[in-house]
Amino acid sequence: MSYYPASIRKLIAQLSRLPGIGEKTAERLAMHLLKAPPKEADALAAALVEMREKARLCSECNGLSDSPLCRICADPGRDQTTLCVVEQPAEMVAIERAGAFSGRYHILQGTLSPMNGVGPEDIRIRELMERIRRGGITEVVLATGTSVEGEATASYLAECLAPHNIRVTRIASGVPIGGDLKFVDPVTLKRAMEVRHAF
Amino acid sequence: MSYYPASIRKLIAQLSRLPGIGEKTAERLAMHLLKAPPKEADALAAALVEMREKARLCSECNGLSDSPLCRICADPGRDQTTLCVVEQPAEMVAIERAGAFSGRYHILQGTLSPMNGVGPEDIRIRELMERIRRGGITEVVLATGTSVEGEATASYLAECLAPHNIRVTRIASGVPIGGDLKFVDPVTLKRAMEVRHAF
Repeated sequence: MSYYPASIRKLIAQLSRLPGIGEKTAERLAMHLLKAPPKEADALAAALVEMREKARLCSECNGLSDSPLCRICADPGRDQTTLCVVEQPAEMVAIERAGAFSGRYHILQGTLSPMNGVGPEDIRIRELMERIRRGGITEVVLATGTSVEGEATASYLAECLAPHNIRVTRIASGVPIGGDLKFVDPVTLKRAMEVRHAF
Repeated sequence: MSYYPASIRKLIAQLSRLPGIGEKTAERLAMHLLKAPPKEADALAAALVEMREKARLCSECNGLSDSPLCRICADPGRDQTTLCVVEQPAEMVAIERAGAFSGRYHILQGTLSPMNGVGPEDIRIRELMERIRRGGITEVVLATGTSVEGEATASYLAECLAPHNIRVTRIASGVPIGGDLKFVDPVTLKRAMEVRHAF
């Protein structure tokens, strides 16, 4: 039984469906939205509707976009010969924020995960191979995650790309810059030692 | 500079205005809403609009309601002679959840806070006194918080109510039930000792 009127109960229920938002937090957010200037709740509702209407996947890279072609794919100033393959749009955003890459992206929208029934047909690998076949790409950087699934996906893609006379690289793993060695997890440390290079 | 399309950037901006939601969390929530079934974002937007349209303050107690009179004020089964004064609707909900009170409420929608320029005219004290003057109330329980402002508000209300031949009580402060004494803060402990009673 709830002690809030129905309209507020509904809002609390919807807010608490968001990841990491429990019922207590949802209640606090709803109370905030009730007390805030009315335009705040209106603006959030409008932003939700607009996102639903406008946001789509870029027809080229499968990244997030408001238009058929995303900002990066439409930018002639980006290096057209290098493709960086990531799992999700958020990873693309992280690499862009770091200013670490000047080429274009390909977003897989997932990783291979046989345990969960996700095979090569379920993520955007076919689209990637099509882009490769269209030509012009000389290097593919595999920047999937370093989880078991991410590594497996990178291995699978490396195999698919092998026949195509393209440089296939993998983003490096190792000790984070500025990180204290004693706080680095043992798996990362072991990998960093294994792939050590001449100074 | 942001790396998301405008519609998603707007949603992230709106979400990060919510209390306790930083930009990182807002980004995660937006990504969730993008990937979730479309009806989830729609339902949240609809709940926001419905809350804005329907939620109002009860004309009697100033609590939250979808109708002119809230569920509690409209319930003839509640004790009509006892009034519990709280700061905010959330406090009313907490008392209701505890099943601690069978009378009706009066929500002040704030506390006296001269430091912040909040005087008796800025919270619902006038409405409380009107309810008292209408008669039928024999006890007022002051359940404002135990902060400096809450205590000051309770003292002020006790003074206002003194001429009205009504029993005025204050919700008890002390050691929480089930709490370990050594973890109770010193101010609470001091107060609990001061107001100790015969066993």
